[in-house]
Formats: sequence, C-alpha cells, structure tokens
Amino acid sequence: MNSVDILVSNGTLLAMDQKNTRIRDGAVAIRGDQIISVGNASDFSGWRSSLQIDAQGGIIMPGLVNTHTHASMTCFRGLADDLPLTIWLNEHIFPAESKLNPEKVYCGALLACAEMILSGTTCFCDMYLFEDEVARAAKHAGMRAVVGEVLYDFPSPNYGPIEKGFAYTEMLIEKWKYDPLITIAVEPHSPYLCSPDLLGKAFRLAQSHDIPMIIHLSETESEVFKSRDQYGKTPVGHLADLGVLASNLLACHCVFLTDEDIALMRYFDVKVSHNPESNMKLASGIAPVPQMLKKGICVGLGTDGCASNNNLDIFLEMDTAAKLHKVNTLDPTVMDADTVLKMSTLEGAKALGLGDITGSLEPGKKADLIILDTHKPHLTPMYNPASHLVYAARGSDVRTSIINGKIVMENGRLLTFDLEKAMEDINRIADDIKGERSVI
Amino acid sequence: MNSVDILVSNGTLLAMDQKNTRIRDGAVAIRGDQIISVGNASDFSGWRSSLQIDAQGGIIMPGLVNTHTHASMTCFRGLADDLPLTIWLNEHIFPAESKLNPEKVYCGALLACAEMILSGTTCFCDMYLFEDEVARAAKHAGMRAVVGEVLYDFPSPNYGPIEKGFAYTEMLIEKWKYDPLITIAVEPHSPYLCSPDLLGKAFRLAQSHDIPMIIHLSETESEVFKSRDQYGKTPVGHLADLGVLASNLLACHCVFLTDEDIALMRYFDVKVSHNPESNMKLASGIAPVPQMLKKGICVGLGTDGCASNNNLDIFLEMDTAAKLHKVNTLDPTVMDADTVLKMSTLEGAKALGLGDITGSLEPGKKADLIILDTHKPHLTPMYNPASHLVYAARGSDVRTSIINGKIVMENGRLLTFDLEKAMEDINRIADDIKGERSVI
Repeated sequence: MNSVDILVSNGTLLAMDQKNTRIRDGAVAIRGDQIISVGNASDFSGWRSSLQIDAQGGIIMPGLVNTHTHASMTCFRGLADDLPLTIWLNEHIFPAESKLNPEKVYCGALLACAEMILSGTTCFCDMYLFEDEVARAAKHAGMRAVVGEVLYDFPSPNYGPIEKGFAYTEMLIEKWKYDPLITIAVEPHSPYLCSPDLLGKAFRLAQSHDIPMIIHLSETESEVFKSRDQYGKTPVGHLADLGVLASNLLACHCVFLTDEDIALMRYFDVKVSHNPESNMKLASGIAPVPQMLKKGICVGLGTDGCASNNNLDIFLEMDTAAKLHKVNTLDPTVMDADTVLKMSTLEGAKALGLGDITGSLEPGKKADLIILDTHKPHLTPMYNPASHLVYAARGSDVRTSIINGKIVMENGRLLTFDLEKAMEDINRIADDIKGERSVI
Repeated sequence: MNSVDILVSNGTLLAMDQKNTRIRDGAVAIRGDQIISVGNASDFSGWRSSLQIDAQGGIIMPGLVNTHTHASMTCFRGLADDLPLTIWLNEHIFPAESKLNPEKVYCGALLACAEMILSGTTCFCDMYLFEDEVARAAKHAGMRAVVGEVLYDFPSPNYGPIEKGFAYTEMLIEKWKYDPLITIAVEPHSPYLCSPDLLGKAFRLAQSHDIPMIIHLSETESEVFKSRDQYGKTPVGHLADLGVLASNLLACHCVFLTDEDIALMRYFDVKVSHNPESNMKLASGIAPVPQMLKKGICVGLGTDGCASNNNLDIFLEMDTAAKLHKVNTLDPTVMDADTVLKMSTLEGAKALGLGDITGSLEPGKKADLIILDTHKPHLTPMYNPASHLVYAARGSDVRTSIINGKIVMENGRLLTFDLEKAMEDINRIADDIKGERSVI
C-alpha cells in the first residue's frame, strides 16, 4: 500500500503543467518535500497518509511565483506616493534607504514573507541590499526564494566598493549553495547604474556557478534615451553587444522594447519579469507583453517593491495584467485567464530557472501548493476556476499553503513564525523612518 | 448627558467631508439612522451609548459608493471572458439573459449585496431588468440603493413594450417613494438603444419626480461613430440637442469624449460614473477622467456588472483607477489617493444625488460607515491611511459595516440575511444557466 506524508484532496485541481491538467475532484500526494502523485481523488482511495488536508471544495493549485520584488521595502509601504519619479526617489526613497541596516532588511523581508504566504505566493525573487538577511528571512518563513545582492558602480551602504559587492555575492553563493529553499543570483542593478565592465564580470560569475543573472532593463523611456546617447544602442542592444544576453538572464520590467530588442531576447532565450502595477503607478509605461508572448519569450509576473505598488498580492497583479493589455491593445482576447495564470506559476518558475522544481503540480516536483477557499460570495457561482483566479479572487482567499512539503499556512494562520512580533518590529522601524512625519 | 445608540471609537477617522477631516483617535456617535457627532474620542468621554464599537486601531470611514452596476449579473460571473465583444454578448450574455426571471434577478442581487457589504460598499446604483426585485433584495440586505428599470425600444423580457416600461418605472417610483434606503431612478439604457422620443419622455419623468436619470454614455468608439452617422453628433451632443443634459443625469462610462462633450457636461453639471476595470476588460478604452476632474465634473467610481469585471470590490477599483490614469497620461501625480478616495465616497454619493445623505461622516448625515482592520501584514506599517486604502487594501479588510444606523456586518459576518442560502440559490441558478457546460 502506498504511504505518504500529506494527501490533499476534495478540491478542483489546476496542475498548471504543460498539458494544463484540470481535475474536478483532484488530489495531490506528498512525501517529504516532493509531490509523489497527482490525480483523481478516487485514484488515492487505498493510500495511507500521515496527514489528510481537506480542500473543502476549493481550488488546489501550485503556489504563485513573484518574479521581481524588493521584499524589505515593506518598511516604506505608503511612505510616499503620487509624486514625480525624481522627487519620489530623491526626497523620500533614497533618504529612507540611506538609513538601511541588516535589521531593517531582515524585518522588512520577514513581513513581506508573511504577506506573500498569506496571499498565495510560495516563491519570490528578490533584489536589494544586505541580501543575506533576505535569504535568512525567507528561510525562517519557509519560503522558496531567489535572492541576490544589488550591484552597481557607486558605493553600497552594505558592501562599499563594487569589488566587495562581488565578494559579498560569492560569499552568498558559497553560504547558501546546498540550501533546499534559497538560490543565489548575481544581480547587477541595470545597464544605467552598471558599467560594461561590471556587467561582464557579473555575467561570468553567474555562468561559472550556473545561476541566474537578474537585472532591471528598459524600465523607463529616459533609460532608453540615455542608453542610445551613451552607447548608441537600446539597453537590450547594449547588453547584446556585451555578450550578456543568455537563457539564465532575467530582465525585469522591459517596458520599452523595439522589435529588434524582442527578437534578440527571443534568440538568446532571455526571461522577463512583467510588473504591470509598478509600471502603472510610477507612470513608466506598458510593457509589450502580448508581443513577447507571441514570439515565445518566457514572461513571469512580479509585484516590484512595496513602495511602488503597494502590496505583494499576485492575484491582484494577475487581474491587472489581464485587463491592462486588453485596453492597451483594444483587444479583449489578449492575455486570457489561462495565459496569465501560467505567467504567475510555471512560466514564473521557468523565468527564475526553477522550472523543474516548482510552478506546477507534477510528480517529482517540490511540493509547493496552495488551497483557495471558493465558498465566498465573490467566487460564487463557479463556471470556470481560471476565470475566478484571475478576475475575481484576492490573496485573502488563500487558506492553506505548503512549501517544499511543509505546511506554512493553515486556515489563514501563518505557522512558521510569530506574525505579531514581525508587525511590531516593522512598526518600530517605521517610527524611526518617519521621525516627525504625521501618520495622518 | 448625551445619550446615543452607537458610539464607534478607537480608530483613525477619515470623514471624507469637504475639509477632508482626519482624526488620529476619532469617534462617531450615531442616534437612530443618523450621525450625531464626529470628533476626537476624548470629546465623547462623558457620553452614554447603548452600544460601543471598538475599531481596534483600524480605519473608520464612510461606506463606499458603487455608482454603476448590474447586481444580478453575479449569476453570470465568469461565464464567459476574454472574448470579442459581439461574441461575448451574442453567444453568452444575451442567451443567458433571455432566461432571466424575477427569481434569478432577486437571488443575483442578494448575492451581490453580500459581496458588496463584505467588501465595504454601503450604497450602489443599479440598472437591470425586473428592478423591483433588486430593490427588494437591497432592502432585505439593508443596503442603500438607487435602482431603475432599464428602458429601451425593443421588447423587454420584463415589461414587454416600452410604454409598459414607463408604467413599470412609475410603479417603482410610487411603491418605493417613502423608503429610507431605496431611491428609484429613470434609466434609459443608452442613446443607441433609445429613440429621441424615449429619452425625452424619460427625462420628463425624472424631472417631474425630481429623481436621477441614469444612462450608459459613450462607452465605446463604435457608439460614437454610429451616433455621428445617425445624428451628426457625438452621443453627448445628441443628448444636449434633446435637452436632457442636466444635473440629475448620471452618465456611465464616458470613455470617448471630445473637449466639447466635456464642456457641455460641465455646463449642465452632468455626473459621471467611471468604470475602469470593465472598460479595460472589454477593451473599450480609457475614460478621460483627469480632464473631467480638472474641469470640475463630479465623477464617482463603479464596478459595472460581474460579467465584465468580475467582482464588485470598490477597493480594487480604486487601485486600478489610480494607477490606470497615471500610466495613460505618463504622469504619476494624477489621480492621487485622496482624489480616488473622494470618488468612491462623497463624489459617488453626489453623483447619485445622495450627497446630503451619505458619502461622508458628518453630523446630520445618515450613518453609513465601515471599519477596516489594518492590523495585517499588507497594511503594515501605516504612514498614510489614504495610501493604504487605495493602493494596499482589499475589500476583505473591511470588518464592520453600518448602513442607515444599522449594523449589517460585524467582524466579517453578514447580519442581515442567510449567506449560505444565498450562495446555494445562486449555485442552483448557475446549474440551470450552464446546462451542459463543464465547470472545468
């Protein structure tokens, strides 16, 4: 008789695999950190399981993947909005960030993990300062994460000069290389804050360890203008000239792309993180995602940091992504619910180089899954679960979350750390950040 | 000593009045259906109250106003998405609507009321068929509502020929005229489905009873083309020619407007319902809301029906409205959080002709208010409550709702009707609608 650790059943199962398997009365069997089997509930009738989880008629699906965030920026959530970019950055975000230290980064990341787990995200990709703290927070929260220290040419509040940034990154790679949850990436900030020399070194470091390289790319029109001015090329063309376009490169934002940029990215199998809410809030523009998808580029969804969104709810990001491109192209058929769901699950995992690990419910993959409670007025009736997930659900509909075979949230309650303390810590940090600011 | 029925205290109070009053430790005193006083918690220290409601450090604010929906379309939530407009309408929505009857309309509206109350809406404006059922459902749920039977020139599944549509509307006006929660409006569908004669009659009926007239206006570009073809005027210009532009006219959508249209609307003080998510999902376009606001036009927010959104959560609509216009104008300062919050409260109430009744917390107004629980990771820390309400909150953060002095939801639990039964009823109706469709 088959014996497993966890059997999840009694729900509509969306496997989000290549075949887009959907099972009305589905079940998932988990042993250790792995998915052993996925199928009809009746297939498991003779199985023994240490723990049975009843999805109560809800939706069983892979955990969501957030392909781009700066988790610790939860510290700055709502600190400044509705401002011109330069005032927002120079008068609010940069001064607040100048006071960053390992404690703030750890606490901010831990709060972000709470928010992400509670809203159905099981894996995130982070770029920030003091990233060892983000890795520690993710590990403590039980989340899967790709993290990397941001690299740029000016002195960093963490590592100082760029040489030490590379040393810090190598330390991270060494420290976390056998961790089951944490993957380290090499993360040069952007072509406009990184010299060609820095970008080349970063690329070689990523290649030598076979890990992802992650970068902000073509986020604003002025970035493209400056690149053309300085290098005679678009940011994508510039990276192509440097020889750093590759299948392990994740390019975040990609709002302004020429047809040639898209062709280059496709040719080198560059991955993309689409961040529609951040691009809208900062008035950057609308990324040509339908065109990228048409060319076969792998695109995942990201929230970006909390200072420019201002939450980490991938359900809301899916809804926005689906609707934004419809109105932008005046075509109601683009970015349909299935496409957007894939972007936030399997395609997101692939974008992070974790396509064999997570992003779908398949035997052999790590057990990263969520259960949604659909017994709610705004999810009633249910003709099509994909439609509900993209257009009607909110992160607060997620009831249970399992990451790497471990239950991290059950019935809406976080199990891996003390949420009250995490919120207290952030409130104390916020008092320090705001100083004399009024809360109203 | 002052004696009241309900005293709500221990929260950050946003009055949403003309002065934009915000009180860090605020309180609201309610007697009967009215707000008696709003102020600092300390002002009420000697007051006696039958019931004390502790906001537990959350946000106390007016209930949200949804200025345009078709509540009963909850029956069709997720039935069909991502389709060209004509296929969506002709092959899915119209056939489903042809099976409408009073029971479906009542049950659909009641489920919509549950969803709206649970997500912080206390007042909605409805246009559909069998509207007496919507009024009954709203009344049963304890919601404030403006409702009106949709009028058009072809035969209606409810009233048959248009003459009977007017008779039905007059019946509604008579039946509900003394109701404290329900306001009847005259609701011709649109200039493209209503003859000039119908529009004139509708306008005179609304004027004679001093009630709102509500219409879909300039929702799609093809509507504008057809109007220019048929009448040589834009839809707004056509209505101006007919003499039906007036301060009691609420025009829904208004996606395609010329400068002259905007000037006409401002001159006649026409009110507007902005429905960004529906306009995005149906790929209609983006309404020029920043321009309308600049000219001083009163604009409220609406979700539109559940078949084109697909939820009724005004918090998500606020977030979308704030971000969409930033990216559309490439200006991050337009539609700031305060502006959008006003649109979903006081301006929304004014748009419905209820500006003296609801939409703000002020002595003399009806007691329509909500309390949000902000002790959650995604609302932590709090530098600015308006920012959180627009950019980070979700409808599920609303904990308590009071409408017309009556508690309709407490700690997330609906008090006015049996939610389980309402969901059961809709699931039964959905089984009938989908027939042989698969749920997956």
